[in-house]
Amino acid sequence: MHKGNIIVGQSGGPTAVINASLAGVFQGAKDAGINKIYGMCNGVEGLLREEYVDLSDSLSSPDAIELLKRTPSSFLGSCRYKFPNLPEGEAVYRQLFAILEKLDIQCFIYIGGNDSMDTIMKLSAYAESIGSSIRFMGVPKTIDNDLAETDHTPGYGSAAKFVATTMKELVCDSKVYNMDAVAVVELMGRNAGWLTAAAALAGDADCDGADLIYLPERAFDTEDFLSRVDSLRKEKHTLVVAVSEGLKNKNGQYICEEKLKDAKEDAFGHKILNGTAAYLVAQIREKLGIKARDIVLNTTQRCAAHLTSLQDVEEAFAAGKKAVGVALSGHTGEMVRFRRIQDEPYEIQLETYDIRKIANAVKAVPDSWINESGTGMTEEFIRYCRPLIQGEASPVMRNGLPCHLSLRR
Amino acid sequence: MHKGNIIVGQSGGPTAVINASLAGVFQGAKDAGINKIYGMCNGVEGLLREEYVDLSDSLSSPDAIELLKRTPSSFLGSCRYKFPNLPEGEAVYRQLFAILEKLDIQCFIYIGGNDSMDTIMKLSAYAESIGSSIRFMGVPKTIDNDLAETDHTPGYGSAAKFVATTMKELVCDSKVYNMDAVAVVELMGRNAGWLTAAAALAGDADCDGADLIYLPERAFDTEDFLSRVDSLRKEKHTLVVAVSEGLKNKNGQYICEEKLKDAKEDAFGHKILNGTAAYLVAQIREKLGIKARDIVLNTTQRCAAHLTSLQDVEEAFAAGKKAVGVALSGHTGEMVRFRRIQDEPYEIQLETYDIRKIANAVKAVPDSWINESGTGMTEEFIRYCRPLIQGEASPVMRNGLPCHLSLRR
Repeated sequence: MHKGNIIVGQSGGPTAVINASLAGVFQGAKDAGINKIYGMCNGVEGLLREEYVDLSDSLSSPDAIELLKRTPSSFLGSCRYKFPNLPEGEAVYRQLFAILEKLDIQCFIYIGGNDSMDTIMKLSAYAESIGSSIRFMGVPKTIDNDLAETDHTPGYGSAAKFVATTMKELVCDSKVYNMDAVAVVELMGRNAGWLTAAAALAGDADCDGADLIYLPERAFDTEDFLSRVDSLRKEKHTLVVAVSEGLKNKNGQYICEEKLKDAKEDAFGHKILNGTAAYLVAQIREKLGIKARDIVLNTTQRCAAHLTSLQDVEEAFAAGKKAVGVALSGHTGEMVRFRRIQDEPYEIQLETYDIRKIANAVKAVPDSWINESGTGMTEEFIRYCRPLIQGEASPVMRNGLPCHLSLRR
Repeated sequence: MHKGNIIVGQSGGPTAVINASLAGVFQGAKDAGINKIYGMCNGVEGLLREEYVDLSDSLSSPDAIELLKRTPSSFLGSCRYKFPNLPEGEAVYRQLFAILEKLDIQCFIYIGGNDSMDTIMKLSAYAESIGSSIRFMGVPKTIDNDLAETDHTPGYGSAAKFVATTMKELVCDSKVYNMDAVAVVELMGRNAGWLTAAAALAGDADCDGADLIYLPERAFDTEDFLSRVDSLRKEKHTLVVAVSEGLKNKNGQYICEEKLKDAKEDAFGHKILNGTAAYLVAQIREKLGIKARDIVLNTTQRCAAHLTSLQDVEEAFAAGKKAVGVALSGHTGEMVRFRRIQDEPYEIQLETYDIRKIANAVKAVPDSWINESGTGMTEEFIRYCRPLIQGEASPVMRNGLPCHLSLRR
């Protein structure tokens, strides 16, 4: 069988370990004796402009590969490009396949989330329809952990470890003064609360953890929240609350949009003031008269490569390598997925699954893993999440700071 | 000579290494054969309520001392108590000295910033005036690095390392999409720009660093800022800007208060919207029409014990130990300070200095260390700051998360 080249791209929001998957793809292809391993610049969007690199230029040594695994953000750049529907949009498909043929590509690997899996689904279907032998494989990534049909996604473990570590530190910090105060920590995840749920890991022998945890999976009631804060502060001076940026009320409206209602009355602006935590902090100050502070972890959650889970880095790498292996053996239109054998000791199996059952779906946190009052997580969730944050992939330090790999173009 | 006991307290805002100084005090006192080593709960405020602990209960093993050095926030709790002036406020001084005598205290060590050094100044002067032999010594700490008469303060090096690391990661993250975007990162320091200046360390062979850096030491001009952003984005798609929370315009008004002016016109609220970065982001969106995001590192800057500078931890410990040594040898009314011998190889000397020349003063970043346009730091600053972030005090990890020591009361 003719062995062509491989091309790999990264798409959607970055994670701290998305480059470990890229390293895995490169290593897998190299081990298989592939001639050229191309990287798309800014995903399919860049590829359509014929922007790509020969990855060997950047990854000429084992040290470079190790450094890539510890480099945050998407090494190749990313995009949020959605392929058009057929038959109207066929010109774009033709254009892309012409480029792939010019580069003698046999396998196309795409590292991404739900939207990126839509790309794999469409391209593999198109390849089949025109009788092309190019194989299309997806490698999962997202800090949101909301991909369907996989136990979890690479990127989540490291983000969860960063969130839980930061929560422990913030809980410590919150207790420093002897006065009533509430810290509201806003965590990423518009549609699923996996990352906010990770705040529950902070609770341990040496830490009270978050006092209240709110996920977007349950409708949020601001009045109930305020009454809980008010009664909790009678037990303890300082509270730390974790909230998902995507909290919605029972009408399905984002909590951070509730202020629009207030805006007319209180002259609050809505142009900048778009945070769930900022809104809740304003409510606490106004309605309860307690000192409150909003802490928004923002993009640090997806790029804190200085504190990653070794388990996550290794799984991300393995997923990239696996994608190459199965694509070379003839698979197409699939995503690498994780199947959990057991929690303790943690055992996981890599397999592949039909992309059509994964693309565009969102996996929410199971309702049974959220406690009855909707203010915390159950032990089941902790058992699920704990193995994903184990171990540390120590950063490569130079002159006091973590060192990252730069792309050679 | 009669050897009495020692009492130590922590005051003001915490740092990631303030507990390393506490560990140093404990170790120094233990080595000197002191009988009882007390810790004030919530500084002098708690002590006046007779709230204190015997530190041996928490620090019974070398492991516990190592864990304390890696525990963020103020282990003993903190306060912002200001001693009254004499003679009106003498009752409070009498009350405090009665407690100190009851506990047979010979040395009173206070770990804190400018305000806390005011406490040491007042108490040592009062002791002298009543002929008390109790010695009062200050140990510097503050992430703001704004204490006078010392090369730097423990806590700054670790906060600077965290800021520079996070900046590197955010710069990486910012480049992921192929589109115009500005990230404005807001850093702590109301009156001095030391911590914001640390963002300059991010610029290295593998990182462009922050494109613009603004310190409160120079008057900030929003129009000039917008015009710089506008011309820079013609050279590169994505910009990362570091701003101090304490930026002021040429009239001495906080930038984040400029919105009050706009408030009347644009119905922007000022109750929640109190961020410098949030204000600048709104200006960029409105005036330049570019995508912009504000990232506020907030209290994570002072409590990120998972990423501390080993140099800083060791210096904080040494400063605590030194304070005990000099107090036992008869010094009072002084603060431990750092005198730099040379930058490279870095060499520092610990000595003590008259507290009256330190208390209540603020040390700004030298004007000559800020570049001409007021948008970045000079090489001199880099040479000053770089040694302070060297090495890592690896956290003690348990079950995937850093472990902290809890106070036994």
